[in-house]
Amino acid sequence: MTHSVAIIGASGYTGAELIRLIATHPSIEIAALAANSKAGQSVGAVFPHLRHLDLPDLVTWEEIDFSGIELCFCALPHKTSQEVISQLPGHLKIVDLSADFRLRDPADYQRWYGNDHAAPELQKEAVYGLTEFYRDEIAGARLVAGTGCNAATGQFILRPLIEAGVIDLDEIILDLICGVSGAGRSLKENLLHAELSEGTNAYGLGGTHRHLGEFDQEFSALAGRPVNIRFTPHLAPFNRGILATCYLKGEAEAVHAALSAAYAEEPFIEVLPLGQAPSTHHVRGSNFCHIGVSAERGAGQCQVVAALDNLCKGSSGQALQNANLMLGEEETAGLMLAPCFP
Amino acid sequence: MTHSVAIIGASGYTGAELIRLIATHPSIEIAALAANSKAGQSVGAVFPHLRHLDLPDLVTWEEIDFSGIELCFCALPHKTSQEVISQLPGHLKIVDLSADFRLRDPADYQRWYGNDHAAPELQKEAVYGLTEFYRDEIAGARLVAGTGCNAATGQFILRPLIEAGVIDLDEIILDLICGVSGAGRSLKENLLHAELSEGTNAYGLGGTHRHLGEFDQEFSALAGRPVNIRFTPHLAPFNRGILATCYLKGEAEAVHAALSAAYAEEPFIEVLPLGQAPSTHHVRGSNFCHIGVSAERGAGQCQVVAALDNLCKGSSGQALQNANLMLGEEETAGLMLAPCFP
Amino acid sequence: MTHSVAIIGASGYTGAELIRLIATHPSIEIAALAANSKAGQSVGAVFPHLRHLDLPDLVTWEEIDFSGIELCFCALPHKTSQEVISQLPGHLKIVDLSADFRLRDPADYQRWYGNDHAAPELQKEAVYGLTEFYRDEIAGARLVAGTGCNAATGQFILRPLIEAGVIDLDEIILDLICGVSGAGRSLKENLLHAELSEGTNAYGLGGTHRHLGEFDQEFSALAGRPVNIRFTPHLAPFNRGILATCYLKGEAEAVHAALSAAYAEEPFIEVLPLGQAPSTHHVRGSNFCHIGVSAERGAGQCQVVAALDNLCKGSSGQALQNANLMLGEEETAGLMLAPCFP
Amino acid sequence: MTHSVAIIGASGYTGAELIRLIATHPSIEIAALAANSKAGQSVGAVFPHLRHLDLPDLVTWEEIDFSGIELCFCALPHKTSQEVISQLPGHLKIVDLSADFRLRDPADYQRWYGNDHAAPELQKEAVYGLTEFYRDEIAGARLVAGTGCNAATGQFILRPLIEAGVIDLDEIILDLICGVSGAGRSLKENLLHAELSEGTNAYGLGGTHRHLGEFDQEFSALAGRPVNIRFTPHLAPFNRGILATCYLKGEAEAVHAALSAAYAEEPFIEVLPLGQAPSTHHVRGSNFCHIGVSAERGAGQCQVVAALDNLCKGSSGQALQNANLMLGEEETAGLMLAPCFP
Repeated sequence: MTHSVAIIGASGYTGAELIRLIATHPSIEIAALAANSKAGQSVGAVFPHLRHLDLPDLVTWEEIDFSGIELCFCALPHKTSQEVISQLPGHLKIVDLSADFRLRDPADYQRWYGNDHAAPELQKEAVYGLTEFYRDEIAGARLVAGTGCNAATGQFILRPLIEAGVIDLDEIILDLICGVSGAGRSLKENLLHAELSEGTNAYGLGGTHRHLGEFDQEFSALAGRPVNIRFTPHLAPFNRGILATCYLKGEAEAVHAALSAAYAEEPFIEVLPLGQAPSTHHVRGSNFCHIGVSAERGAGQCQVVAALDNLCKGSSGQALQNANLMLGEEETAGLMLAPCFP
Repeated sequence: MTHSVAIIGASGYTGAELIRLIATHPSIEIAALAANSKAGQSVGAVFPHLRHLDLPDLVTWEEIDFSGIELCFCALPHKTSQEVISQLPGHLKIVDLSADFRLRDPADYQRWYGNDHAAPELQKEAVYGLTEFYRDEIAGARLVAGTGCNAATGQFILRPLIEAGVIDLDEIILDLICGVSGAGRSLKENLLHAELSEGTNAYGLGGTHRHLGEFDQEFSALAGRPVNIRFTPHLAPFNRGILATCYLKGEAEAVHAALSAAYAEEPFIEVLPLGQAPSTHHVRGSNFCHIGVSAERGAGQCQVVAALDNLCKGSSGQALQNANLMLGEEETAGLMLAPCFP
Repeated sequence: MTHSVAIIGASGYTGAELIRLIATHPSIEIAALAANSKAGQSVGAVFPHLRHLDLPDLVTWEEIDFSGIELCFCALPHKTSQEVISQLPGHLKIVDLSADFRLRDPADYQRWYGNDHAAPELQKEAVYGLTEFYRDEIAGARLVAGTGCNAATGQFILRPLIEAGVIDLDEIILDLICGVSGAGRSLKENLLHAELSEGTNAYGLGGTHRHLGEFDQEFSALAGRPVNIRFTPHLAPFNRGILATCYLKGEAEAVHAALSAAYAEEPFIEVLPLGQAPSTHHVRGSNFCHIGVSAERGAGQCQVVAALDNLCKGSSGQALQNANLMLGEEETAGLMLAPCFP
Repeated sequence: MTHSVAIIGASGYTGAELIRLIATHPSIEIAALAANSKAGQSVGAVFPHLRHLDLPDLVTWEEIDFSGIELCFCALPHKTSQEVISQLPGHLKIVDLSADFRLRDPADYQRWYGNDHAAPELQKEAVYGLTEFYRDEIAGARLVAGTGCNAATGQFILRPLIEAGVIDLDEIILDLICGVSGAGRSLKENLLHAELSEGTNAYGLGGTHRHLGEFDQEFSALAGRPVNIRFTPHLAPFNRGILATCYLKGEAEAVHAALSAAYAEEPFIEVLPLGQAPSTHHVRGSNFCHIGVSAERGAGQCQVVAALDNLCKGSSGQALQNANLMLGEEETAGLMLAPCFP
C-alpha cells in the first residue's frame, strides 16, 4: 500500500533531505510540496539536485488539498510551524521538524523561545520524536515533534547512562562540533563561506542554547530529579555532521556496557568497541549514529563521543523513521542508504 | 535471481563506492572482497562508513574461490590490473575500473603509459565502458574497461556534437575542475589537506594527461579523422565532482539540440534548458550528469558545461551500470540514489 | 613624512584588507574610517581580526573632516562610489576600488552597468589603476580607478602578449577559477558555506560578466583594433585567490619570452620557468602574481596560467601600490608580506 | 645590528613559517637553511610561496658553517632534534621547535615519548619557551624549548587561573579543535584532503596525547601539587588554528579578572570583554591569541575559550619571539603582522 504525504516547508535543507530520502522509499509517495515563498516554482528550480525526480511543483500550503493525504511533514521555521499546524485538518498525521512541539510545558516553551505558544493544546498532544526511546508513543501519535539535532545526539549518549545509573548526574559536560547545514538556508553573515570556512568558533555560550530546554526536560524526567548538563556547540567548516564529545564521571566499562545493551537491537545506532572513536565522515548522508567510549587517565572518568548527520539522523531521517512507525511501515524503509565517503 | 560478485581492490575509494552502491542493489550480492595490502581486516576497519553492512572480510585476490562468482569488479591500480585480470578464470565477467584496457591499440597504450601491455589479447577483447555509447557491446562483453572519469565527462559533452557535425573539430578546448578523490587514496604531498585546501592549481599541462589518449582514440574513430582536443584539468578543494567547461565553435542552439536529442531517453544524463549551467554540488554522490549549453557573445561560439561525480558516474557508478547490462539486470538498478546536497 | 589617509567603505572585505596592509606601512596613517551602515562601532567589533590595532572608530563618510587628509580610499559598492566621490573635497587624492571609474566611455559604462554615470567628468579624469602598465599616469593622478580583480589577472597575462604581437588576437580564451571573497560580504544564498563548499560551478556565462568591459577597452586600445576575448569565471570553495588559465594560439617560447621581458623588473610579478605552473596557494595573502607558460601538444598552441590573491594584488594591494605612487612613497611599501602557506 | 641565524628543518611547515616571519624582521638575516632530505634545492622549489625572497639554497645541516651564526632554529622532528642539537657548536644560541626539550624530567620524557633522552644534560639546561611566563629565563638562555601548540593554548588559559587560585584544580577539562597543519607535512592517510575535509573527529582520547606531559609538568609546578587536567583534541578541516574550550569550576568574573590582569601588558594576548568568544578566523596567520570568558548557567561554572594560530603563536611565532629576547631585540619585532581574514 502506498501512502500519500505532503511536505510543508520544502524549500529548506530539511525539506530537501526529506525528498531525497523519500525518493528511495518503497511505499511513500509525495502528493504535495509547499514552500510559500517559492510557490509556483518546480523543485528542480529550487534544488537542482532533485531535478531528476518526478515531483509536484511547489505551492502554498493553503493550496494543498489534504483530502487524500495521510501524513504531512512540516519543515517550517519555529513559531510559523505552530501557526500552520493548528490550521491543518484533523485527519492528518503530522511530523513536525521545527522546535515548536518539543517542550511539553508551556512555561518552558515561553522561557526558551520568548513567546507564548499559539497552540498549547497541540503542545500537550505532541509526542517527542526521539524514535529509539518513544517508539510506541510515536506509532500511535497524531502529532510527533522532531527533536533538535544537537539534542538528539546528546540524548543518544546520555539517556542509557542516566537510566543505567552509571554516571554522576551533576557532572555532565557535552561539547559539540556542528556542521553548518544545521543553521539552515538563512542569509546570515556568519554563515557565508568567506566567514565560516578555514576556522572554527564556539557559539551559544553561557547556557543559552535552546536545545538545553530539551535536555533539561528529558534528562530530568528520566532521572526523576533535576539534571542540568553543561553544553557548548562549536561551528566548524563542513556541511553535514555533529560530533558530540561528552565528558563524564563514570567507569568506561560500565558506560560502554550500558550503551551496548541499550542499542544492541537498534538498526541505526552502532556502539564501537571500547576505546574506538567515531567520526562524522563515516555517517555523512546517512541515518546512522556511531558512538564510542574511551576511558580517561583519571580514575572514574570517561568520554563518550557520538557522530551523526544533523540533516539526516538529526532531523529528516528521524522524521521519516517516525513517519514509518506512524504509517505502519517498516521502521527502516528508505533509510538504509550507506554513508557517502569520501 | 541474485548474482554473486567479487570486488578486487576493495580498499580504495572506487572499491568503497562500489560497495556503497551495491548495498542498495536488489539483485547483486557481494561474495568476496579482496585488498591484498589489507587482507584479514574487516571492511568496517578499513572503511568505517560501511561498518553497518554484512560483508565478507578482506582477503587476497588469490584466496577468492571464484567458482560461484559471476562477475568481478577490478578496482586496482593500472598495470597491476592487467596482471591480475589475465590470471582470473575464464568464466568470470569482468568490469575493470583501471586504465589498463581503455586503449585498444598497444602502441597507444605504450605511448601513454610507458610500458608494454602484459595482456595484449585481453586488450583486444575489452569493450570500452562508456555505457551510453557502447550499450550493446557492453551487454555482450566478458571484459569491460571503465573509462577515465575526466574522459567520461568530456565525452558526454563532445560525442553527440561530433556525431551531429555541429562543431569545428579543430577548435575544441576542454577545461576541467576536479575534486580530489579522483586521485585516490594515495599518500602524496599535494593531496594533503594542508596543501590542497584553500586554493587551486592546474596540472597535467602541455597535453600530458593520460586521458588524452582516450579522447584521441574515441573522437578520431567517431569523426573518421584525427581529432586532438586541448584539455587541461585543475585540482580544487572538494572531494567529489568534475566540472568540465568546453569552449567550442558552433551555434549554441544546434549544440543544445544535438545534446538534447542524444540524451532524451537517457536515465542519468540531464540536458538543462539553454542558457542554464550545472554545478557539481547538484550531482554529488549520484550517478547523474548535468549538461548546460550557453551561447557566447561572439558569433558561432558557445560553451558547454558538464558536471558529474567522478567516483560515481565517473567510475564506480558507471561500473555498476555496465555490470547491470552484463548481468541482464535493469540498467538503473542500485543507481537511482538522489544527490546528497548540501 | 607620514601621510594621513581615510578609508570609506571600511566594513567590507577590501576595506579590511586595506587596513591589514596599511598596518605595516612605514609612512601611512589611517586618520578616518567610514562605514555608514556600521557608524559608531569600533573596527574590532566589525572585524575582530583587527582588534589589536589602534584605529579610529567607524563614522559616516559625511562626518569625516578631510582637511588634514591627503588621500582617500573608496571601497564602496559601485554606483554608490561615484555618488560619494563626486562630493569629496577637491584637494583629496582618491583611490577608488569600485567599478565606477574603470570604463572611460560613458556609453560603455551604460552598457555594462545599466545606468548613466552620475559623474561623467570624473570618469574622464580617472586613471586606470593597473599599476604595472599605468605607472606614470597614476603617479600624477588625482583619481585612480582600481581594476576588477579578474580583469587584473587577465591583463597580467595578455597585455605583454598583445604588445609583443606573439598571439592570435581572435583566439583568446580566458578561463578563471575564483575564490569567494571576490563577491564581498553580501548576503546571497549562493555564497553560503552550505551552498558553495564541496563543489564548483561556472557563472557569468555567455559573455555577460562586467569585467569583459574592461578587457575590451584595454585590449582594443592596446592592439589598435577590436579584441574581444572569451572569458568564463568559476566559483570554487576557497576564500582568496584567482587562477586564470588562458588558452592561446602562439608559440610557448615567444610567449614566455614576452612575459619574462615585460616583468623582468617588476617587484610583484614572477614569471616561472617555462613549463611550470603557479597555484593560488602560493600567493595567498600577498601582493604577488605568479605566471607560468606551457606549450601544448598542438603546434602553435600554448597556455598561460596566472595566480594572484583577489583581495590583495587584485584589489586592496593594488590600491595601496597606487597610493604609494600618488604619495611619492616607495611603490612596494607595506606590500612585501610573504604569502601565508599553508 | 643584524643577527645571522640558521634554520635546520626548513622544509617543513614550521620552517616555512619561520622564513615567512623573518622576511619582515628588521634585524635578523637568514644565513643558512638546512633540510637534509631536500638539500641542494632552492627554497622556492620546496615552498613556491617563498620564491620572491633572496635566500640561501637548502643544504644538509652538517654542511652549515656556523662560525658567523649567532642563533639556530631547529624545526626537526622530535628525537632527531636532540641528536642534532647535541652536535651543534657551543657558541650557538638555539631555539628548538620540537618536543625534545619540553620535559625537564628524564623519566617524564621516557614515559611520554617511549625512548631514553639522547642528550639528558641539554635537557636540564633547556628553558621552557612559553614566552609570556618564562621571559627572563629565555632572555638569558642558550637553549630554549618551544612548547607544544596545544600546550601553549591551554596554558594561556590556565596558568593565570591556577596562579590566582580562582578555579578548582581537580575539575579542569580542556577541549580542543585543531587545524591540520599542526600535524606537519607528513604523508598519513588521515591527513589527506579526501579523508579530513567535510567532517571532524576526536583523537588522542584516553589521556594519551603527549602534550599532557607538558600540562602536568607546568601546572603541577605552578600549583605546588599534582594537577592533571582532562584534555581531548579534535581534528577539523581547516589549516591553521587551535580553538581551546576550557570547562571550569570558578566564578566567571574572577576568572575574567585574573586573565585580564595577567595579560594587561602583553602585546600578543587579548582578553575579550566578559561574555565574548574568540574565533580562530580572527588570529589566522598572526602571533595573536584571543581569550574569552563566559559564565555558564550553573553557579560557579564558567568557560574560557582561546584561539591562536598553531603555526605562528603556537610554534614559529613563539620561536621568533623567544629569539628576539635571546638576541636582545624588541620582543615584537617581525611579529606584528595582522591576521589574514577572510
